[in-house]
Amino acid sequence: MAHPGDVSALDALINSGAVDAGRIVAVIGKTEGNGGVNDFTRGYFTQSLMQMLSGHLQASPAELAARIPCILSGGTEGVLSPHYVVFCRAPAQAANGNEGKGGALAIGLAFSAPTAVEQIGRASHAHQVARAVRAAMDDAGLDDPADVHFVQIKTPCITVARAEQARACGLEPVSGDPNKAMAHARAAGALGVALALGEIDEAALTDAALLSDMALYSERASVSSGVEISCNEVIVLGNSPRWRGPYRIAHRPMRDALDIGAVAGALSDLGLAASPQLGQDALGRIAGVFVKCEPQRNGRVRASRHTMLDDTDINAQRHIRGAVGGMVAGVIGDGRIFVSGGAEHQGPDGGGLIAVIASGAQDA
Amino acid sequence: MAHPGDVSALDALINSGAVDAGRIVAVIGKTEGNGGVNDFTRGYFTQSLMQMLSGHLQASPAELAARIPCILSGGTEGVLSPHYVVFCRAPAQAANGNEGKGGALAIGLAFSAPTAVEQIGRASHAHQVARAVRAAMDDAGLDDPADVHFVQIKTPCITVARAEQARACGLEPVSGDPNKAMAHARAAGALGVALALGEIDEAALTDAALLSDMALYSERASVSSGVEISCNEVIVLGNSPRWRGPYRIAHRPMRDALDIGAVAGALSDLGLAASPQLGQDALGRIAGVFVKCEPQRNGRVRASRHTMLDDTDINAQRHIRGAVGGMVAGVIGDGRIFVSGGAEHQGPDGGGLIAVIASGAQDA
Amino acid sequence: MAHPGDVSALDALINSGAVDAGRIVAVIGKTEGNGGVNDFTRGYFTQSLMQMLSGHLQASPAELAARIPCILSGGTEGVLSPHYVVFCRAPAQAANGNEGKGGALAIGLAFSAPTAVEQIGRASHAHQVARAVRAAMDDAGLDDPADVHFVQIKTPCITVARAEQARACGLEPVSGDPNKAMAHARAAGALGVALALGEIDEAALTDAALLSDMALYSERASVSSGVEISCNEVIVLGNSPRWRGPYRIAHRPMRDALDIGAVAGALSDLGLAASPQLGQDALGRIAGVFVKCEPQRNGRVRASRHTMLDDTDINAQRHIRGAVGGMVAGVIGDGRIFVSGGAEHQGPDGGGLIAVIASGAQDA
Amino acid sequence: MAHPGDVSALDALINSGAVDAGRIVAVIGKTEGNGGVNDFTRGYFTQSLMQMLSGHLQASPAELAARIPCILSGGTEGVLSPHYVVFCRAPAQAANGNEGKGGALAIGLAFSAPTAVEQIGRASHAHQVARAVRAAMDDAGLDDPADVHFVQIKTPCITVARAEQARACGLEPVSGDPNKAMAHARAAGALGVALALGEIDEAALTDAALLSDMALYSERASVSSGVEISCNEVIVLGNSPRWRGPYRIAHRPMRDALDIGAVAGALSDLGLAASPQLGQDALGRIAGVFVKCEPQRNGRVRASRHTMLDDTDINAQRHIRGAVGGMVAGVIGDGRIFVSGGAEHQGPDGGGLIAVIASGAQDA
Repeated sequence: MAHPGDVSALDALINSGAVDAGRIVAVIGKTEGNGGVNDFTRGYFTQSLMQMLSGHLQASPAELAARIPCILSGGTEGVLSPHYVVFCRAPAQAANGNEGKGGALAIGLAFSAPTAVEQIGRASHAHQVARAVRAAMDDAGLDDPADVHFVQIKTPCITVARAEQARACGLEPVSGDPNKAMAHARAAGALGVALALGEIDEAALTDAALLSDMALYSERASVSSGVEISCNEVIVLGNSPRWRGPYRIAHRPMRDALDIGAVAGALSDLGLAASPQLGQDALGRIAGVFVKCEPQRNGRVRASRHTMLDDTDINAQRHIRGAVGGMVAGVIGDGRIFVSGGAEHQGPDGGGLIAVIASGAQDA
Repeated sequence: MAHPGDVSALDALINSGAVDAGRIVAVIGKTEGNGGVNDFTRGYFTQSLMQMLSGHLQASPAELAARIPCILSGGTEGVLSPHYVVFCRAPAQAANGNEGKGGALAIGLAFSAPTAVEQIGRASHAHQVARAVRAAMDDAGLDDPADVHFVQIKTPCITVARAEQARACGLEPVSGDPNKAMAHARAAGALGVALALGEIDEAALTDAALLSDMALYSERASVSSGVEISCNEVIVLGNSPRWRGPYRIAHRPMRDALDIGAVAGALSDLGLAASPQLGQDALGRIAGVFVKCEPQRNGRVRASRHTMLDDTDINAQRHIRGAVGGMVAGVIGDGRIFVSGGAEHQGPDGGGLIAVIASGAQDA
Repeated sequence: MAHPGDVSALDALINSGAVDAGRIVAVIGKTEGNGGVNDFTRGYFTQSLMQMLSGHLQASPAELAARIPCILSGGTEGVLSPHYVVFCRAPAQAANGNEGKGGALAIGLAFSAPTAVEQIGRASHAHQVARAVRAAMDDAGLDDPADVHFVQIKTPCITVARAEQARACGLEPVSGDPNKAMAHARAAGALGVALALGEIDEAALTDAALLSDMALYSERASVSSGVEISCNEVIVLGNSPRWRGPYRIAHRPMRDALDIGAVAGALSDLGLAASPQLGQDALGRIAGVFVKCEPQRNGRVRASRHTMLDDTDINAQRHIRGAVGGMVAGVIGDGRIFVSGGAEHQGPDGGGLIAVIASGAQDA
Repeated sequence: MAHPGDVSALDALINSGAVDAGRIVAVIGKTEGNGGVNDFTRGYFTQSLMQMLSGHLQASPAELAARIPCILSGGTEGVLSPHYVVFCRAPAQAANGNEGKGGALAIGLAFSAPTAVEQIGRASHAHQVARAVRAAMDDAGLDDPADVHFVQIKTPCITVARAEQARACGLEPVSGDPNKAMAHARAAGALGVALALGEIDEAALTDAALLSDMALYSERASVSSGVEISCNEVIVLGNSPRWRGPYRIAHRPMRDALDIGAVAGALSDLGLAASPQLGQDALGRIAGVFVKCEPQRNGRVRASRHTMLDDTDINAQRHIRGAVGGMVAGVIGDGRIFVSGGAEHQGPDGGGLIAVIASGAQDA
């Protein structure tokens, strides 16, 4: 990507026949905005992508946007590089009767109904997400939550303007502060995943628990939030014996922003050794790396004070993405890492999680 | 440090007798400013430190500032933690007749005369620095440049106001753009070190070479630049058989911002293994980690486009410090890492260097 | 505009018949990005606008983009509000035989050929712009440069990636620093206007003069620069007896960022009095306010030191747009002001210029 | 001020005899930090000032800091210029028996006891401030609240570290978000002033009202909050017939960020006419201009959408200071304006207030 509106690389792959546009089912990527409420690079990329695909398929951009989740995280701080991962699904891949050793990468999708502004970031929002996650698992043919390794969610968020509209109707949004509301929306998405995967009890999921009871979390949820959508988009990734293909996925929770062992662990699950960095062959097997992270709210990383939360000039999410992105990219040897901040309830508090997709790992 | 004016931790160590204030010869630290021209946390810390030491010693703050180099780098992006390393020198340590296996950490100092505003960032500035480096080597008793592992320099820089004053006198500063002038000042410092250590030929050191011929560099120079000083402060660190003590130092150049192998290499030179992170015992031996880094000027880190140089919102130096700091802290397991951007001519272009001081490494 | 991709307000006006899409000849607006190299809100808006207009006209978005200049300035700091001004031209308006008292607002357009990366920001670029300005004056039927009150230019600029490509071909861009190159591009645009309007001598227009001889300037040039275009787009606005319509335009140079008198002066030329702010009726007559401004390079605004140029956290152009925008919006009583930084050679050095379009001013 | 540690101008005035150091009772100023939690320029200036004054007076810096309120607002966005106003009080000035025409500028001071972290930003904090305001009015000899025109308060605030400490003791701070807590602290200060001046009823002052019932406000309160203090510092300014001297003070509420009429109004109360800017003579009479302002929380300034609250890159307070500072400086003709954001309950919601001190206005 030369800029957030540049989808020429995928266009060329489609034109060359390497990618069948009709088999594209989802896109996850990073764009070079600031990752906050006023990051419009996500909407720009989505508009450009759907317009380009519309030229290849018999569907309008709006129809495509309604059926192909395009989940973007803004912010390519430090060594992170703008990029997008395109997920394709061929009929044969989803066929039954294939029993590999541990299975292959499986993908399933779902879109929820729109979430009302006053509902965003509350427990009912999480329940809505949980239902969508189960629908996406069905779509992937993943019955066992243990086979699910990564669930990417995109939720709508609340701008000052949307909050005003809601208030004018007598409805109170969860917060009038756009960044705070965005955090609530991510929290609802994460606990929705945790509920669907059986990581938390339904009784624990209350309005009060969101952004408060940080002992509740999913080890496999990655949630972004953006102004450009009004419903929840869900992508479920796992390994399934029903699927064939060269790819497998692994994940690990990260206990804090220095948990380099989690990176090595996820790679190891796929038969990849970093010592301390992946070699060229191993790097060539990597198809996608997805990370969530979060500045520790107590102002410390292990024993040492950090300054991310007190910085008036750089948003804390931009700080943490740059730092964790630097660490993961150092181990992988490449900056095309999906690193997303705002990991509320996504992995241990103050930490996060990592998922890696690699080819050639069937026997691991 | 609770804030940039907080020197209470050192004050307590002096009061408890753990540190003899009279033996403090240098301080290197990171403060939580933005690291740019308008970062006043460096001056604030220095003022606070000298005032506190003045209460323990028979000298005014100004006298102490003139004999104890206090070299600070602003910017604790991401997981980096504000901290300072205090170097003490006891008479016995510098005594002759001590033949260790490879020697112990040696330190030497020098201050140059003030650099004129119009001279800052030019070849004559580099020559001035080179002379000061040789004086500091003499002070440390380090005769062989090969025994030098790290040279920390602080150079003055040019603000808009200083540039105006110079122009009013008919003198042209190297650049009217403060950030550009700061880069020139660091370049002059780095090539001064390279010249003193025999890493470059004197003939190669021209005005035109600064910030231009990036094949010229020192693997052991670390240069900061700040508005708060007018002369060049030099700290030379090496291993010397003439010195005794628990510490040794090692260094490695970093070829780019993903060179995690350089971190492992420097640790390995001191008998420390990160797999992938230092264990508690090994971490306890670390006394200081010093890193210089720089955003690759061609807009790429290895194969992938980075966005640090095109970002209007976050200064590129803040980006790179956060990313490389995240990687090094991940390997070390602690955020108290001195990571300084602006590595022009300090290590390979687009990369940088790392130096580590650890105890218990005499036999490594 | 609810966001940079929102063109629904114009779409509604077209659907209601209030605006004839076929008569739209140019758009000038402000979007809410950072206004720097990595501001993609401009490209996003343009893509959205051309796509929307394509639905109303028999032309592809690309064809429309090639004939309707859409000149945007990013950055709505402070009280500034994202907005766009749509210029329509009806056949009758351009008809001869109409001799009003002083004439009515006239508009003319031109697009230059693409500017090569190595040419951007040099004297030859300025000559190319001057030719385009003359073509736009012809298009408007404005023969006398004195009747021209505002020339809006959009020039291409140089990203790190473009600079690399040029260097790979052995061509040297004017600067490798994207923000510096952007300044050079604006300078070339401004002196191109000055040349076309007879405000400077052709002999004075040299490579060396750009960004250096600040005594050369145009009082009527407004230049933006963006990554999203490769040629120069020109919109000339003036008053012509050959045109009919309710609007007239006036302009004033601003000598510095505190020149509130220039605002009052331009309003006065249109028969509008601010005491100290326009009343509701007068505000209703305002159709567009266009301002260029620039932080004083000597670090002072009149007697007092400013800190815009030394700020590592906020780009100086963002600072000055916010300040001058606040002043002008205070006099006008509305935040929908086009305020663009980067006023190199556009008005007096350290100042800028203002142009105002208002209706009902024929007799003033 | 050349930088935040530069108090040489005042030092020179003291050395020349123009200022009697013993008569300095308060300082109000602007420093060039970011104005947020991590703005250390305020602490740096205060440390420098008290150290310098300590050289002139028989008191330690700590003793002086405890008796001379030094109230600073960080952030000199746009045309604003770092500066400080020094208030001196001579015995004769406070003498009785002086019946001027309307009186002269009077000043009174008070320091409260330290505010506990868990108390900061709550109603009890406001009551504590109200008591201190009444004490300061007594100190000034201002009996009638109507004679008070400006009350400057500095309150302590809550950093992440302080919040952690409180929680460790089982105490809950008003908010864990440092910027949010700072807003609460300012709100408590403002309503404390409003209570002391009779602008609100005591019954209305509840925990719930803070930052919520924006119909409650003081037209004369200006509150800053900073990490560097633990108690509340109060400076009351008014006009008193008991005082003599060349200065008088006037104030006006500002209804929104475009209320240029309030600026003209306050000047007019002092017999100063801006048309549209003060002339040189009138400017020479200005001794201090103090402004509070705030981004409108509904996302609009009058009819137009603003983007201050949705901006992830620039803090909303920095935006609004730059914009309102630009407007006021345009009317005054000088950038040495004290403009402070965070005007919660300080003037009408979304607006703020202005106070001006000028000499030669006794007869106005």
